[in-house]
Amino acid sequence: MNDFLSICPIPFSDADECIQLAHGGGGRKMQDLLRNLILPAFENPFLRTQHDGAVLGAGNSSIAFTTDSFVVRPLFFPGGDIGTLAINGTVNDLAMCGARPRWLSAGLILEEGFPVGTLRRVLDSMREAAHRAGVQLVTGDTKVVDRGKCDGLFINTAGIGTITHPVSIGPGRVEPGDALLINGDLGRHGIAVMSAREGLEFEPPLTSDCAPVWEPVQALLDAGLEVHCLRDLTRGGLVSALNEIASASGVEIRLEENTIPVCQAVRGACELLGLDPLSVANEGRFVAVLPEHQIPEALSVLHAHRHGKNAVRIGRACSASPGQARVTLRSPLGTTRLLDMLSGEQLPRIC
Amino acid sequence: MNDFLSICPIPFSDADECIQLAHGGGGRKMQDLLRNLILPAFENPFLRTQHDGAVLGAGNSSIAFTTDSFVVRPLFFPGGDIGTLAINGTVNDLAMCGARPRWLSAGLILEEGFPVGTLRRVLDSMREAAHRAGVQLVTGDTKVVDRGKCDGLFINTAGIGTITHPVSIGPGRVEPGDALLINGDLGRHGIAVMSAREGLEFEPPLTSDCAPVWEPVQALLDAGLEVHCLRDLTRGGLVSALNEIASASGVEIRLEENTIPVCQAVRGACELLGLDPLSVANEGRFVAVLPEHQIPEALSVLHAHRHGKNAVRIGRACSASPGQARVTLRSPLGTTRLLDMLSGEQLPRIC
Repeated sequence: MNDFLSICPIPFSDADECIQLAHGGGGRKMQDLLRNLILPAFENPFLRTQHDGAVLGAGNSSIAFTTDSFVVRPLFFPGGDIGTLAINGTVNDLAMCGARPRWLSAGLILEEGFPVGTLRRVLDSMREAAHRAGVQLVTGDTKVVDRGKCDGLFINTAGIGTITHPVSIGPGRVEPGDALLINGDLGRHGIAVMSAREGLEFEPPLTSDCAPVWEPVQALLDAGLEVHCLRDLTRGGLVSALNEIASASGVEIRLEENTIPVCQAVRGACELLGLDPLSVANEGRFVAVLPEHQIPEALSVLHAHRHGKNAVRIGRACSASPGQARVTLRSPLGTTRLLDMLSGEQLPRIC
Repeated sequence: MNDFLSICPIPFSDADECIQLAHGGGGRKMQDLLRNLILPAFENPFLRTQHDGAVLGAGNSSIAFTTDSFVVRPLFFPGGDIGTLAINGTVNDLAMCGARPRWLSAGLILEEGFPVGTLRRVLDSMREAAHRAGVQLVTGDTKVVDRGKCDGLFINTAGIGTITHPVSIGPGRVEPGDALLINGDLGRHGIAVMSAREGLEFEPPLTSDCAPVWEPVQALLDAGLEVHCLRDLTRGGLVSALNEIASASGVEIRLEENTIPVCQAVRGACELLGLDPLSVANEGRFVAVLPEHQIPEALSVLHAHRHGKNAVRIGRACSASPGQARVTLRSPLGTTRLLDMLSGEQLPRIC
C-alpha cells in the first residue's frame, strides 16, 4: 500500500521524538509521520496521487507498482498466515489500482534460530496463495539477522500489475453523487489475528477474510462500470480508508450504519475488547466508489464472484465545504456521528 | 538481488533445523537454503535464469524487476548508511540486468523507540542517493514493531528498470573465450562496515565503495559491446559471484591474482582480521564478462566514468568438463588454487 502518503494537515509534533507503535497503525499518527517526515523526502507526482500503488508508463503500456512489509504476530492465525497475507496484501494493492496482478518479489528477513520447518510452511502458503491469485513470484532476497534482532520472520512483497482498462482510478476521483459499496462483512481479519494472539476461541470459529480480490475488481472493469475509486480496508479498516478518500477528494462520505455488515462473532468480540469493527483491519475487503446509478449493476456483477457475493451499498459521497471533508455515520435511530480516524491502530502488528 | 536462486547441488542437511546466520551470508549455506527450500516453492522460468532480477515483458517493452532487504549493522558507516545502501543496492541489481533503473519502492520496518531524528537522516540519504542514481521512489510502506522485535530499522527496496538495449545478459551466457573485468578495487564496503562495527580506525580513513553503477554499464551497452554477463559483488564478494557464474555457465573461470586490485588498507585489515578480500562484500563494484577481443574497448569505455575509471581485466572463462565448473586463482608465483565459495559470510549483516 502506498503508505508513504498522507493527507492529514497535523504538524509532526516535537513530542514525537521516537517512533511509537501508533506510527505504524494506519491512523492519524502514521499519516503524521508520513506527511511530515517521509513524504517530503521523496516528493513526486506518483506519491502525490495518494493511491495504493504507483501507476507508471513503461513503453506503450502502463503498469502498477506497490509494496508492503508484513510483520503480523503471530505468524499463523485462523484462515491464513504471514505468507498468505504477504501475497494477497500486495495482489490487492495492485487490484486497487485497477491493475491485473502479475509479478511479485519477496524479501525475507529471518531471525537466527527460526525453525526451517516453519519457514517451509510459510513458503507453501505463499506458493498456494500466489497460485490462487494468478501471480508469479519472480525475484527475491533472503537476509538473516542475529537472534533477538527480529521477531522470527518478516516478509516484504512488492508487486507489478498491468493496467488493462483505460479507467482512471484514485482516491482523489470521488465526486458528490457517487455511492460506495463494500464486498463483504468487516473485521474478520483483525479479530482472527487477535484471537490467535490472545488465545480466544469462537464458536463457530472465526477466520480471517484474507483473499485476493482482483477477480471481482476485474469484473467491475470488464462490465464497463465507471469505477472512480477502489481501496482495500487493511490497517485502520473502513474508517481510515474512507477518511483518506474523503480528504483526497474533498467530499463528505455519509454511511448508513445498518447497511454495513459485521458478523455476530466480530461484533461480540469487538464489544468485549472495546474495539470498533469499522476500524478493524480486513485483508480481503475493499470499497468501490461509482456513480450512484451504476450501483445496482455493480452489485449484480460482484454477486457473481466468490469474493463479492456479499457486496452491499453502504453510503454515498456528498459535496463538502472546503476543509470540511469528513466521514459520517447515521445510526438506525437517525443520529449522525463523525467517524474520525484513530490515532494509531487498535491492534498493532495485524499485517 | 535474485537471492532466491541457487546453483549448488548440495542437499539441504537435516542438521539445518534452524536458520543460522550463515544462511544469509551469500555463500554455500545460503544457496543450500535457497535451492532446497525456497526455490522449489516458487519454481518458474524467471527464477531459473539465476539473474540479479527478473526480466519481464510488459506490453511492447521489457522491464527488469528486483528486490533487496537491508539489515546492515550499524546503520551508519564511513561512506554511507542503510539508506544509501538500500537505493544503490537495488539500482545496481537492475543495472546488472542491463536495465536503466527507473522506479523504486521502499518498505520500512521500524522498531518502537527508534529516534525520529535518525530516521530523518536515513531518509535524507535515500533521497540524495535516489537523485544521484536518477531513480524515483514512487511507492512505499511503513510498519512499526514493538521494542526488541527488530534492530532499529530494516529497509526493503524493490525496483523496476527499463531494458534499453536488445542484449541478453545473464550468468548462464558466459562462454569459453570470454574475459572478465571489474570496475575497481575490492573489499572497501565490507571493511568500512566492519570498522564502524568494531570501532577500528584507518589512516587515511577507508570508506565504502557504495555507489550506483548504471552509468558505466550503460556506457558499455551504448558502445555496442557484447556484454554476456554482469554481476555486482555484494554478499560473498567476487568469489561468490564468480562461482555462481561458473556454475550457471558451466565454465572454469581463471583469475590472475596480481591483476585484482585491493587497496593497502583493505589488505591490511583483512590480514589482521583473517578475512579474504575476494570474499568481502562490495556495494559499487561489478564484474562484466565479454568476448576477450572486446576487453580493450570495454576498459577504455569504463575508464571515462567515475565508477569505472579503475576498471581492469582480471581473468578469463575456459571450457570445463561437465560438473567441473569452478573458479581458480593463479598467484604471481604461478601456483593455482581453487576459489571455493565460503559456507556463510565472513561479516554478517554487511548489507
